[in-house]
Amino acid sequence: MPKPSARSAAAPASPIRRLYPLSVEAKRRGKKVYHLNIGQPDISTPAAFMRGVREAKVEVLDYAPSPGIPEALEALVRYYGECGLPVAREEILITVGGSEGITFALTIACDPGDQVLVPEPFYPNYLGYARLTNVEIVPITTSRDDGFHLPPRAEIEALIGPRTKAILFSHPGNPTGVVYTKAEMEMLVDIALKNDLFIISDEVYREFVYDGKHTSLLTFPEVRDRAILVDSISKRLSACGARIGALISHNKDVMTAATKCATIRLSAPTFEQLGLAAFMADPGHRSVVEEMIGEYQRRRDLFCRELLDIPGVTFRVPEGAFYVMMGLPVEDSEAFVRWMLTDYPGQETVMLSPGAGFYVTPGLGKDEARAAYVLQTAHLRRACAVLADGLSMFNRALAGEAVGERG
Amino acid sequence: MPKPSARSAAAPASPIRRLYPLSVEAKRRGKKVYHLNIGQPDISTPAAFMRGVREAKVEVLDYAPSPGIPEALEALVRYYGECGLPVAREEILITVGGSEGITFALTIACDPGDQVLVPEPFYPNYLGYARLTNVEIVPITTSRDDGFHLPPRAEIEALIGPRTKAILFSHPGNPTGVVYTKAEMEMLVDIALKNDLFIISDEVYREFVYDGKHTSLLTFPEVRDRAILVDSISKRLSACGARIGALISHNKDVMTAATKCATIRLSAPTFEQLGLAAFMADPGHRSVVEEMIGEYQRRRDLFCRELLDIPGVTFRVPEGAFYVMMGLPVEDSEAFVRWMLTDYPGQETVMLSPGAGFYVTPGLGKDEARAAYVLQTAHLRRACAVLADGLSMFNRALAGEAVGERG
Repeated sequence: MPKPSARSAAAPASPIRRLYPLSVEAKRRGKKVYHLNIGQPDISTPAAFMRGVREAKVEVLDYAPSPGIPEALEALVRYYGECGLPVAREEILITVGGSEGITFALTIACDPGDQVLVPEPFYPNYLGYARLTNVEIVPITTSRDDGFHLPPRAEIEALIGPRTKAILFSHPGNPTGVVYTKAEMEMLVDIALKNDLFIISDEVYREFVYDGKHTSLLTFPEVRDRAILVDSISKRLSACGARIGALISHNKDVMTAATKCATIRLSAPTFEQLGLAAFMADPGHRSVVEEMIGEYQRRRDLFCRELLDIPGVTFRVPEGAFYVMMGLPVEDSEAFVRWMLTDYPGQETVMLSPGAGFYVTPGLGKDEARAAYVLQTAHLRRACAVLADGLSMFNRALAGEAVGERG
Repeated sequence: MPKPSARSAAAPASPIRRLYPLSVEAKRRGKKVYHLNIGQPDISTPAAFMRGVREAKVEVLDYAPSPGIPEALEALVRYYGECGLPVAREEILITVGGSEGITFALTIACDPGDQVLVPEPFYPNYLGYARLTNVEIVPITTSRDDGFHLPPRAEIEALIGPRTKAILFSHPGNPTGVVYTKAEMEMLVDIALKNDLFIISDEVYREFVYDGKHTSLLTFPEVRDRAILVDSISKRLSACGARIGALISHNKDVMTAATKCATIRLSAPTFEQLGLAAFMADPGHRSVVEEMIGEYQRRRDLFCRELLDIPGVTFRVPEGAFYVMMGLPVEDSEAFVRWMLTDYPGQETVMLSPGAGFYVTPGLGKDEARAAYVLQTAHLRRACAVLADGLSMFNRALAGEAVGERG
C-alpha cells in the first residue's frame, strides 16, 4: 500500500495536538478547564456582520469573483482608509483566512527550496504553510529578556544567504505580543531593501495594541514594491470561523500572481464576505472594535498583574495581541501542562501552550508557555490562582519524587 | 525590486482568462452573451440549505473543527450511505471546495517533483493545483472519436515511471462528460494496484449521469487502501460559492496526513457547513437533486439534438456531467470564440471554452471547444442557432479574406 508523501507525513505535530485529547478527557471527568491555550476570542461576533449573513440576497450561490466580492473589497478599501493606509481596490485580494494569505505570500515570494527569515518564537502554523509550499524558515531568534524585540541588524543580516527571498513576521506578534518600535520597523524595511527581499507583515492583530503605537508595513514608501500585507477579520471581528482574510500589495506583479493563485481555488466563501461588507456599512463599526479592544486592555492589565504575583513566572508585559509568552519555574513546560490536565487535583485546571512549539531552534522555549488572555476577567483571575497553585504543587511533587529516588 | 517566484509566474493562464474581458466588453456594447463557457449552474440553491445558513445559531463565529463540523460530517455520512457507499465519519474530511480536496490529495500522494497521470483533456485547474504543489501532470491522451473513453491498458502503463505516484481523474468527466464503464474502472483500479499508485477520483458530478451507470471508486475493495475520493456540493446543490467539498479515504495514514493539512489552514467556512447539514436533514433532499438531474437530462438531450444539426460540429453524446467537448469546423477555436465576441453582428452571441486549454499536449484541442449546458432550454436553443450562424459566417469571412489575400 502506498505511503503518504514525506512532506505530508512531516507536517508539524505541535505539542497542543498531543495534549488536546487530555483536555477532552479532563472535561469528561467533570473538570472545568480554563483554556488559555487557544487564541479564540470569546466575544460575540458583531450583530451587523451576522445580519449581513442572514439577510444576504442570494438565489443561486454561485462562485464569487476570485479576488473577492466587490462590496467586500470596497469594505476593505474603506477599512484601510480609516486606518490611514490608503489602498486601491485592485491592490487587495480577499483570501480564505489569513492562512491562505500567508500561503499565497510564500508561494509568490519563494520558489521551492527558497528561504524566509522569521523572528522566533513564531505562530506554529507558519511552519505548516512553509512545509506545504516547500519553503524553509530560518529563525531570527529573539528572547523573553528583551520582550521579544529584535536583535541587532548584523545578527539578522548574517542569516541572509543566496536563497533568502523574504522576511515574514506577525505584528503585533503571536505568541509574543511584541509591537515593534518605529526604529525596528525601519531596520526591517532597510534590510529588505538592501538585500532585495520581499517583506511580509501579518497584521491580523493591528488593533490589539495597548502600549506604544503600531507602525504598519504599509507606511513605508521605500518598500512599496516589496511589501506584502497579510490580514484577517478573524480577531478584530471575533470571527475566526468566517475564513476571510486579505493579501495586499502595491506591486502589480505580486497582485497578478496572487490573482492566479486565487483563480485556481475559485473563490472565498460568499456569505462571510457579505457579512464583512455589512459590518463595514454599519456606522457604529468603529466603536464596536474599540469597545472590544478596551475589554482586551482590561484583560491584559489584570492578567499581567496576577501573573506578577506567581513566584518564578517571568515575562515582560506585552504591548499587543492577546498573548503572554512567559517563563515558568519548571524545566519542561510540556510536562507541566500535561500534569495539570492529568494529575492536578480539584475541580478546575488550566491549559497553556508549551513554549517549544513556537520555536524551530532545538532546545529553545522548553521552560516557556504561551497564555492567551481571551477569557473574561473573573475567569482569568481564577485561572491565575489555579496556575500558581499548580506550579507550586508540581514542583513539590517533582522534589518529592527526587527525594524518593534518592532514598 | 524582487520578482514573484517562477512558480507563481508560471501558473497557467487559460484562454478563458484572456477572452473574459472581451465578453465584458461585448455586454457593455449591449450584447446578450450566452455563456456556455462556465460550469456554473443557474438553478436556485435549495431552500433548506439557505435556511440552514440564515437560521444558524452562532453567537461567536469561532473556528470550526479542522476536519469539519460534526453535523456536516454526519450529513455526509448519511449522503454516502444513501449513495450505497458506506463511509465512517473519521474517513471524511470537509475541504474548502473540491479545489482544496485535489490540492490535499496531490500533497499527500506526491512529494515535490513526483508525477500524476491524468486523462486528457482535463479540468484546467488541475494544472494549477499541480503547479502549486510542485507535481507534474503526465497526460493519458483520449480522443473525441472514442467519446473520450480510455485507451488500452498498455498505453497507460507505458506512461508510468519511477516518480509516478497516482492516477487522478474526474468522473463523470469535466470537460468530456465521459462516464467510464465498469470495465474501464476495473482497469484503472488494477493499474493502480499493480503499479503501487494512489488512485484519486474526483466525483463532484456523481449524480449527473444520463446513460449507463456511474461506478464510484469507493466500490472497489481491492483499492480500499489506495483510493482517495474528492467531492464537492458545488454542483449537486447548485452551491459553487459555498466552498464545501470533501476528501474521503479508508486509509488511516492518508486521513492523518489530510487532517494535518486541514489543521494548518484551521477550518472550512462555518455557515455553509451548517447549510449542508440543514439540507441533508430535510426529508425532501433527494427529490430536490433528482429534479435537478431531470432538468439537466432535458438540457443535454435538447442541446445535443440541436448541435447535431450544425454542419461540421462533431461529438459523441456525453453520458454525464454537463459539458459537451465538441469538434468545430474551424482551425483555431480560440480565434473563433474571440471573433464571436468581437465581430459577430447582431444582438446576441455565444461564448465557448476553447479546447486547447484542456490539454497539456501541445497542438491538441485546437479545433475543439467545451460547452456547458447550464442554461434553460429556451436559451440553449437560441445559443445553438447563434452558434450555427456564427460558424458559417466566420468561415465565409475567413474564405473571403483568403480570396482577398490571393487577389
